[in-house]
Amino acid sequence: MSKTKVAIGIDVGGTNTVFGFVDNEGILVYESSIPTNSYEKADLFFDRLFKKIDEDFKKFSARYELAGIGIGAPNANYYRGTVEQAPNLNWGFVNVLEIIKKYSPLPSAITNDANAAAIGEMLFGAAKGMKDFVVITLGTGLGSGIVVNGELVYGADGFAGEVGHTIFDPHGRMCGCGRKGCLEAYASATGIRRTVFELLGTTVTPSELRQVNFNQLTAKDIADAANRGDKLALEAFDFTARVLGLKLADTVAYLSPEAIILFGGLALAGDLILEPTKRYMEENMLNIFKNKVKILPSALPGAHAAVLGASALIWNELEKHRK
Amino acid sequence: MSKTKVAIGIDVGGTNTVFGFVDNEGILVYESSIPTNSYEKADLFFDRLFKKIDEDFKKFSARYELAGIGIGAPNANYYRGTVEQAPNLNWGFVNVLEIIKKYSPLPSAITNDANAAAIGEMLFGAAKGMKDFVVITLGTGLGSGIVVNGELVYGADGFAGEVGHTIFDPHGRMCGCGRKGCLEAYASATGIRRTVFELLGTTVTPSELRQVNFNQLTAKDIADAANRGDKLALEAFDFTARVLGLKLADTVAYLSPEAIILFGGLALAGDLILEPTKRYMEENMLNIFKNKVKILPSALPGAHAAVLGASALIWNELEKHRK
Repeated sequence: MSKTKVAIGIDVGGTNTVFGFVDNEGILVYESSIPTNSYEKADLFFDRLFKKIDEDFKKFSARYELAGIGIGAPNANYYRGTVEQAPNLNWGFVNVLEIIKKYSPLPSAITNDANAAAIGEMLFGAAKGMKDFVVITLGTGLGSGIVVNGELVYGADGFAGEVGHTIFDPHGRMCGCGRKGCLEAYASATGIRRTVFELLGTTVTPSELRQVNFNQLTAKDIADAANRGDKLALEAFDFTARVLGLKLADTVAYLSPEAIILFGGLALAGDLILEPTKRYMEENMLNIFKNKVKILPSALPGAHAAVLGASALIWNELEKHRK
Repeated sequence: MSKTKVAIGIDVGGTNTVFGFVDNEGILVYESSIPTNSYEKADLFFDRLFKKIDEDFKKFSARYELAGIGIGAPNANYYRGTVEQAPNLNWGFVNVLEIIKKYSPLPSAITNDANAAAIGEMLFGAAKGMKDFVVITLGTGLGSGIVVNGELVYGADGFAGEVGHTIFDPHGRMCGCGRKGCLEAYASATGIRRTVFELLGTTVTPSELRQVNFNQLTAKDIADAANRGDKLALEAFDFTARVLGLKLADTVAYLSPEAIILFGGLALAGDLILEPTKRYMEENMLNIFKNKVKILPSALPGAHAAVLGASALIWNELEKHRK
């Protein structure tokens, strides 16, 4: 009996790095993780990671064979195979694909997590069969992966798709990037927390959230409060959707996508965010685009989405070379 | 001796329709025009146009043979071959490529003028050898053509690249599209005229432009005044560049282009607009993109740029099919 091919999908996170073995239909055969250890240099990190992967794969090698390695990592550059000055890693500027060659002769590819999510949606999720779409990840920040004609847009230097750092209001909130008013300062899990605290200050609306401190508050807390009818929490969702919808009308003007797929923490709030985002996007959209663009939730299984996306990256490369 | 191949480039304008015969290196062999007649239906228009083209080509048929027909027209849809409700034409929704088949068996393609300009720059102009760039046309409105990986971005329905209708200020100026604060209401030949008149009202700055009425004022008048040191005209250029630079920082965040090429009426003002646009773009740009993106003037000969762009559209198609 011939062995089933699986790709290794690796998602490098600030706290944990998750990896898994995924077949070319998106079936996750196995998943595990190691702590990322943010103080550690890249060499030592990948040494630990591949020891663990090799060890774990032994249990599967009778029935499966490895086809390639796909990696999603912050500040990853697809063209150069590098991770460049990622804020939560102590790696500096490092060529990850070069390091990986020491451990495996398999074909490998790296990109950032939002781009990996986009390819994951295209191969296994909500964008199956689509050639033009955008994935927006609403987590700590706002990431994005843009697909045009079935290909991820990397641009001239590999860093295209920074929709989170388009400017909503040049006089607005400070962003982590050092500028003011970036979309991600409003539309992200962190952004909606900031909106709640701004509203706690600027309004006298009673709210259960008046008893929570900033560091403890999560986007899920805000969604739970909104689902219980908390007016301030509802207002925070409305404002977040208004900002996101306005800027997604710009996204449509640039790219005319078939769909925009919302992914990650804040997207789990479902219609609290999807419905008003769609409504505000339509309100702000040029006539020729009205009622043409879907806003969809991710269709990757939440807990495993990042690993599926990373594996999709390399499955997509293998498919391209097969053609 | 074998004949040299030329494409017919056709630029449909609101007043005149210009056509020419262009070889595959961008040499314009002949150019002429007919009035567009804005009241006329498409059938009659193309009947007049092809009679004129056939008549004129007779003088060249001994040495040249025709390879294809490329058309730039307002509200043109590349996928469908249509022009759809163009504001200055009485054509309604019409399939132009179907009409053309009655007159010629040659391969043909249609797109809007900004997309044609982008392919023109790629084949014959400032974007030669580039795979990722954006052309911004600063005329009556602001049009744009986006190229990713050497291919024009059309999006799911063929209307991608409406950068002029991304929103600068949701509470800002009325735009011709019925919404408020679109980029083209500020950054275009019309936009800078509006800025001059706003400044004439909101400031007491002495200016030679206080003697000109709105309908007479042209972008060239404003550039001439600025070149003579007129402070109000200089302020109008500075404001226009500030708005354009801010929004082009968004363009870079989406697409990470190698260059942004400015084309059309207002771009003829040269460094009055290019230098401050570049400066404001850099000021507003995410760190990872700083000092990487060129702002270039069009390198197509101004008077013939539209016809060269339209011919480039079909040369590019013929090249794709040859591969």
